[in-house]
Amino acid sequence: MLFKLKKYDKKYDYSYTYGIYPTLDLFKYRAAQVSRVVLNPDGDKNKGFEEIIQLCKRHRVPFEFNTPLIEKIAAKENTYVVGVFNKYKSSIQAERNHVVLVNPSDPGNLGTIIRSMAGFAFKDLSIVSPAVDVFDPKTVRSSMGALFGVNFEYFDSFQSYKQRFNNHLYPFLISGSTDLRETRFEPPYSLIFGNEGSGLPDSFAQMGKSVKITHTSNIDSLNLSLAAGIALYEAYSQSGR
Amino acid sequence: MLFKLKKYDKKYDYSYTYGIYPTLDLFKYRAAQVSRVVLNPDGDKNKGFEEIIQLCKRHRVPFEFNTPLIEKIAAKENTYVVGVFNKYKSSIQAERNHVVLVNPSDPGNLGTIIRSMAGFAFKDLSIVSPAVDVFDPKTVRSSMGALFGVNFEYFDSFQSYKQRFNNHLYPFLISGSTDLRETRFEPPYSLIFGNEGSGLPDSFAQMGKSVKITHTSNIDSLNLSLAAGIALYEAYSQSGR
Repeated sequence: MLFKLKKYDKKYDYSYTYGIYPTLDLFKYRAAQVSRVVLNPDGDKNKGFEEIIQLCKRHRVPFEFNTPLIEKIAAKENTYVVGVFNKYKSSIQAERNHVVLVNPSDPGNLGTIIRSMAGFAFKDLSIVSPAVDVFDPKTVRSSMGALFGVNFEYFDSFQSYKQRFNNHLYPFLISGSTDLRETRFEPPYSLIFGNEGSGLPDSFAQMGKSVKITHTSNIDSLNLSLAAGIALYEAYSQSGR
Repeated sequence: MLFKLKKYDKKYDYSYTYGIYPTLDLFKYRAAQVSRVVLNPDGDKNKGFEEIIQLCKRHRVPFEFNTPLIEKIAAKENTYVVGVFNKYKSSIQAERNHVVLVNPSDPGNLGTIIRSMAGFAFKDLSIVSPAVDVFDPKTVRSSMGALFGVNFEYFDSFQSYKQRFNNHLYPFLISGSTDLRETRFEPPYSLIFGNEGSGLPDSFAQMGKSVKITHTSNIDSLNLSLAAGIALYEAYSQSGR
């Protein structure tokens, strides 16, 4: 049987992992969601390729060697593995430190932030809509599979997030009142970041303790995924790990 | 007269800025290199648009309203301004802190790192070939114009870089001997980063003081531009700014 699959569309109830490592992470954290795997036989010299075939067998996931199909659905050349998975619900937990992204619009940035979360021991991501689709294959790819190990939840507004959680709030603003380096985060806390272009609305300056990352006046702002990554690094360093 | 321009190719002796802000930075730092400017009249409500026209007049740079040409050469929709500039030679200075990128392969990462350099007061970038083209419009764009305020120089090998500069060397390696947080950078120093996929060759472990950025075992490594951004942030924080 030959699989029939189309290029990703947000309205589908499934999405894709591109590449060996993200697909291994998919099996590691969300094996029950994997519906199929498509392979390019040229990948068989690569580490992890045979492991994916074994995982398919163990979890009874149909797999197929079909290079033309990979070329159709993968965005990048030389993709050896595409995992097809069913989208799933996820929810964030109380009494833990959160990352809150308000209206993120770039799937690559979102994935990079998720990768940094995994690297710096954050497990819970709140996303305030309108926002990019967390299951966009570009997000999955730039997260390098870290998406599958993180809890995430969408909220219609920041208010509806705040009503459910009592975390200490640390909104990141260019005009923040304290410097990141001097900020001591009191758990459980939420690190809050705005949109790539517009940042957080001014109203956030009145919530919790606003934080700035000091930089020279040669740039207007740091890249969003970099600002978030630096904040997570700093919080992780403070925690004593 | 209608300009004739093609999609960017590395072999040309000119390149492009896309957008108002990168073009303003081009004029600010490298006005003598600007050869032409192409404008989309729809951009005239945007901040900085009229300023660019004034800059063209002051510097006697030919400009033209030509939306179809912008659509042909710009990678992104809704680009209102394209600056055309002649490539130029640049050289890094001794007795200053350097960033050294060994074989960077992604133009977006390179631009993001240059933006971080500008943000954290680094002015000198050494690039070891083979490496991505610093004038690639994708690099210019992700640097947000910061490229024009930074010195850069290509080297055939790390050896040829080392022969000219006596900086203290800090190679960043997953197996680095000291943690970034505990490392005190002794000026003038060089922060050295490897390729996106392969990192630095093992031989760098023997040079200077190798540094690691501690993260959880949930990820294999940090994204290159993030690792560099965190290192620059830490060095800038240590410097007392």
